[in-house]
Amino acid sequence: MPETMRAYRIVQWGSAPEVVEVPVPRPSRGEVVVRVAGCGLCHSDLGMMQMPREVGESFGWQVPFTLGHETAGWVAAVGADVTGYAEGDPVALVSPSSCGECWYCTRGQDNLCAEGMSGRGYGRDGGLAEFVRVTSTRGLIPLGRLDPSTAGPLTDAGATAFHAVRRVLPRVTPGGVVVVIGAGGLGSFAVQYLRLLTAARIVVIDTNDARRSLAEELGAHSTIGRADAATADEIRALTDGGHGADAVLDFVGIDATIGAGTAATRAGGAFGLIGAAGGKLDGPWFGGLPKDADIFTFQGSTIADVRDVIGLAESGSIRNDVQKYTFDRVAEAYQDLEAGVLRGRAVVVFDT
Amino acid sequence: MPETMRAYRIVQWGSAPEVVEVPVPRPSRGEVVVRVAGCGLCHSDLGMMQMPREVGESFGWQVPFTLGHETAGWVAAVGADVTGYAEGDPVALVSPSSCGECWYCTRGQDNLCAEGMSGRGYGRDGGLAEFVRVTSTRGLIPLGRLDPSTAGPLTDAGATAFHAVRRVLPRVTPGGVVVVIGAGGLGSFAVQYLRLLTAARIVVIDTNDARRSLAEELGAHSTIGRADAATADEIRALTDGGHGADAVLDFVGIDATIGAGTAATRAGGAFGLIGAAGGKLDGPWFGGLPKDADIFTFQGSTIADVRDVIGLAESGSIRNDVQKYTFDRVAEAYQDLEAGVLRGRAVVVFDT
Amino acid sequence: MPETMRAYRIVQWGSAPEVVEVPVPRPSRGEVVVRVAGCGLCHSDLGMMQMPREVGESFGWQVPFTLGHETAGWVAAVGADVTGYAEGDPVALVSPSSCGECWYCTRGQDNLCAEGMSGRGYGRDGGLAEFVRVTSTRGLIPLGRLDPSTAGPLTDAGATAFHAVRRVLPRVTPGGVVVVIGAGGLGSFAVQYLRLLTAARIVVIDTNDARRSLAEELGAHSTIGRADAATADEIRALTDGGHGADAVLDFVGIDATIGAGTAATRAGGAFGLIGAAGGKLDGPWFGGLPKDADIFTFQGSTIADVRDVIGLAESGSIRNDVQKYTFDRVAEAYQDLEAGVLRGRAVVVFDT
Amino acid sequence: MPETMRAYRIVQWGSAPEVVEVPVPRPSRGEVVVRVAGCGLCHSDLGMMQMPREVGESFGWQVPFTLGHETAGWVAAVGADVTGYAEGDPVALVSPSSCGECWYCTRGQDNLCAEGMSGRGYGRDGGLAEFVRVTSTRGLIPLGRLDPSTAGPLTDAGATAFHAVRRVLPRVTPGGVVVVIGAGGLGSFAVQYLRLLTAARIVVIDTNDARRSLAEELGAHSTIGRADAATADEIRALTDGGHGADAVLDFVGIDATIGAGTAATRAGGAFGLIGAAGGKLDGPWFGGLPKDADIFTFQGSTIADVRDVIGLAESGSIRNDVQKYTFDRVAEAYQDLEAGVLRGRAVVVFDT
Repeated sequence: MPETMRAYRIVQWGSAPEVVEVPVPRPSRGEVVVRVAGCGLCHSDLGMMQMPREVGESFGWQVPFTLGHETAGWVAAVGADVTGYAEGDPVALVSPSSCGECWYCTRGQDNLCAEGMSGRGYGRDGGLAEFVRVTSTRGLIPLGRLDPSTAGPLTDAGATAFHAVRRVLPRVTPGGVVVVIGAGGLGSFAVQYLRLLTAARIVVIDTNDARRSLAEELGAHSTIGRADAATADEIRALTDGGHGADAVLDFVGIDATIGAGTAATRAGGAFGLIGAAGGKLDGPWFGGLPKDADIFTFQGSTIADVRDVIGLAESGSIRNDVQKYTFDRVAEAYQDLEAGVLRGRAVVVFDT
Repeated sequence: MPETMRAYRIVQWGSAPEVVEVPVPRPSRGEVVVRVAGCGLCHSDLGMMQMPREVGESFGWQVPFTLGHETAGWVAAVGADVTGYAEGDPVALVSPSSCGECWYCTRGQDNLCAEGMSGRGYGRDGGLAEFVRVTSTRGLIPLGRLDPSTAGPLTDAGATAFHAVRRVLPRVTPGGVVVVIGAGGLGSFAVQYLRLLTAARIVVIDTNDARRSLAEELGAHSTIGRADAATADEIRALTDGGHGADAVLDFVGIDATIGAGTAATRAGGAFGLIGAAGGKLDGPWFGGLPKDADIFTFQGSTIADVRDVIGLAESGSIRNDVQKYTFDRVAEAYQDLEAGVLRGRAVVVFDT
Repeated sequence: MPETMRAYRIVQWGSAPEVVEVPVPRPSRGEVVVRVAGCGLCHSDLGMMQMPREVGESFGWQVPFTLGHETAGWVAAVGADVTGYAEGDPVALVSPSSCGECWYCTRGQDNLCAEGMSGRGYGRDGGLAEFVRVTSTRGLIPLGRLDPSTAGPLTDAGATAFHAVRRVLPRVTPGGVVVVIGAGGLGSFAVQYLRLLTAARIVVIDTNDARRSLAEELGAHSTIGRADAATADEIRALTDGGHGADAVLDFVGIDATIGAGTAATRAGGAFGLIGAAGGKLDGPWFGGLPKDADIFTFQGSTIADVRDVIGLAESGSIRNDVQKYTFDRVAEAYQDLEAGVLRGRAVVVFDT
Repeated sequence: MPETMRAYRIVQWGSAPEVVEVPVPRPSRGEVVVRVAGCGLCHSDLGMMQMPREVGESFGWQVPFTLGHETAGWVAAVGADVTGYAEGDPVALVSPSSCGECWYCTRGQDNLCAEGMSGRGYGRDGGLAEFVRVTSTRGLIPLGRLDPSTAGPLTDAGATAFHAVRRVLPRVTPGGVVVVIGAGGLGSFAVQYLRLLTAARIVVIDTNDARRSLAEELGAHSTIGRADAATADEIRALTDGGHGADAVLDFVGIDATIGAGTAATRAGGAFGLIGAAGGKLDGPWFGGLPKDADIFTFQGSTIADVRDVIGLAESGSIRNDVQKYTFDRVAEAYQDLEAGVLRGRAVVVFDT
């Protein structure tokens, strides 16, 4: 390993990130250092770039830290007492921190661990660098034949969508309907999982023509171009007896999608809010929310979710569309992300 | 059986109910007629007394119909082909209609059956009469040693509270905290179920001194006298690590209780809304709702819920406080209910 | 409807069934009479043909009764008070009796109802006749575009296999392995459901070459030709870390398959026994059974299972291979079934 | 901390353990050393004392190691990078090893971790010594006001019984019956959990008069003195409609108890085998096992189970009967355990 490396870092609160030359980390006891093959870019990174100091510090974050929380690569060095990993092993990284021993972690709900407020790429050094330190092998998922240069987005965009789909599965029945609102980076994974794991009819709502047509490629049975007052009736008309959808997953999260989505959900169904756009239900809950349904929000995913998504990808069951940028083009990649001109996840690669 | 009987009926939309002399029903094939021992009064009856014709008819209801949906008594006559029931058998009545064969009914979710829009006492003849017709033995629950003159409230107030408690049980852990907001007719049952079926610490929120003190008698570990901005912090302070409550059951349902209740719920916990006061959450759902929690509303209860509650009462495990009124005092009983001066459920009895 | 019809009946205990001319049933109040399009034949029919009187009577059965419990057709006549069905409607029949109101039925577990000891085609008149009486619309499932002449097997062979698959789904994970032992009438449905509803690798064990090759056509990823001492190791070798299979469904049920199947199941997995061949586990349970696994047997399926399977078939998601015989060839059809020369379910059709 | 300490160790395979003077362990980075207050003795220790070398080595165990896997005490020293624990903190120890990062551990099923083959007190140094090393804070559960000298048995006997009870809870209904076979160290915890967490009637089967009478003290509603051919009928007679018990937990595990227990379980119920006596079901599984029931075995408990049991004990909800022996009487304590003359768990204490 070299002495220094390039890293794309938030150096000052509220300022644009910079490419900085920093020392390559060395593994302490129980730690591993990974050479990064590729790191996906996420909308949440854009928020961090403009985050006021007070907000960041309220999360316990310190600047500088390296961005990037969708990382995969190869083991480059292992610390003392590390077993099960050797130099060269391809691995994906679980980005959220979790202690492994609290009430939540020992119940398999590590995404709710108090340490999860920070993670690799938000608050501590992430994957937009040539090397990244992993403080516990708990943060590593072995890859088989998957290409580490593109596997990163599976650990975040892929796993978050999986967390939502896994939750609704018990309420989805053969012959039922499931609605995915927003077929972007996360929603397009959800469509695929639903095709793989249910026999329901999948309806995608998205205002963007290209995303609707991608959704159909990925398995959606039909699409709708807007979410408004008429949408719930339109969806109910597709369901047996007009009951409504078994599940609605809202990856947008504005008032209109929450309103249409909850109205379209059948009694006993599920409505999951994944989109962070700040919407709410504008009306009384009792009588307004579907009866006996499961209404939920969440953030991130568990280690088990990541493992399951990697399992799906290893078996060739899902498509993971990425657009590659070399590290010197990282700022341009973020511009394309912000402009909404990407088709697939942007991944910054280091293997050149 | 006599030829005629007294019944307390809604005779005209929007007018006060009247005591009317009507024919005693006779059972057709598969039907049973029950002599009523006692019938509980419910707040929802007050709403029906003032219901505009359009609303009632939108539910498919016709006037006149006899009020009363918390009924128990003895089998008085059985129709052809009825097996398993004989004259004199003590029984409780399930009031909501359900078809027994639809998608929901065959999954044990009969409270979601489309026929449930009407029921015995709302839209068709209920238990505020000396006799009541039961069109299918599906609507009967055999009583053992329970007194039919007071068992009626178990089938509605008791079973609705049970439906809510049953839903949250998987998320309640030993050493956790459960909050019941509103310790009236339904909430006081919930407190008892939670004591019986969990090892959690039970906190009751109620503005009424008498109800708080009843809640403590019934097993609440502590009580709070209001639901406001400080309530969630107060509850979190009682929980391990400040995580929040395993479950909050809101039997009130105004903005303040929904706000305090969802804020007090731990990540991965449950918030159930049972109170029909028309409240909502005044703020963004994403970030505002507890993560990975189970948020739900519902209406009524299933036949299995009624059976389970009757089982609890038969074993002497729960208290069912009632205040008895003879049939000639039914109007007075409703006045006392409306005035909020009852301690326990008002039950109109016929056994004099 | 004609006055009389042909029916294939057990007329005397222990004697071969006979074609008999009997009156066409007329519907009483709440009943429906269905003109049979096709009725599937089941191995269990062969057992009934040889059943000693004592056994049959211990089930509460009386001879004569018409055989056939995999029936579909069209509504031919409706009794008084029947709503939702009209002459000509295509329907499938749920064969097991269930009361609709007992502890089990009201929890959606109607296959455990005490009345299930008899059913249409076993103890009371079934579908091997031109018309069949349905005493409650609870026994009818509406068909959409499915052909009633071949839909019958979905209600029994299809639904029983679904009941087993549905039970194991929560324990099957992406990247896991599921084993189906015996790819005959039921097992071949199971393979299809597992492909539709999981992302696991499906391994089929069957000694019969044709059935193994059919299983591969239907979606099995690999097959094994025997179940012996080496089988569990062979399956474990296919699983991640040698943990074992997420689930094993044994449609054979001899000592060898139960032994191999439980040994191949991972800790925390599931082993379901559907095959009635009378096998057991020859060894200590503690230490011998997979730890924290779900071991289960069952019989039949629920109405909801039938509905879900019909839903899958309506959506074109599953294949239902049948071999048609006209009613005059019913004895020959049973001979072919007994000889094991069928490929697909034998169905006796009446539409000629 | 002193330089050396006394430890009760298996020094040679197949030989009686010895009291040995050994160095007091010092904590490395991330480790904690605990001063032992009390350590419970378990039947499984007796087996280890006689274990042939081949068996021990097949588990990956090396001699010498210190016995004792039911340990609690106070933090005596903390290694570098340990947060959340300070000298003097009272703690209970989770004895089974678990990696915290494998497929099982990240799903909250750490009792199934491959590392669990060894643990503190079996294969590596346990709690029958003045100090014990804890290699990860994952192995520590903070105690509040519980006395560490007696808390040890909660982590093993208590938690194993809890694991079984937790599994069956979803199948236990108000008014149902639950059977506990064997009211010894584990079974007497189970009786208490069932009283706390269900409203079922609890029936205890035990051949020992003293244990039956203890069971009644702890909450059993009735007891039976043997498990034979008549037992299942006797239990069914106590249940509604003769359906059978909602759940049977067998802490003995001989052929007779497995036979009686599975025969007494209702369709859709649960039978859990915890007793390691090597029994099996002597008869066909199909038809013999209760239909649609949950049959399971397991070993040990999860960290979350331990935490929940500690939670129950902290709230004063359960009794934990122990008989104290000072360290110099450890051999005598094992003799009393083997002789079956203990009432409550034997705990070796160090606080003299």
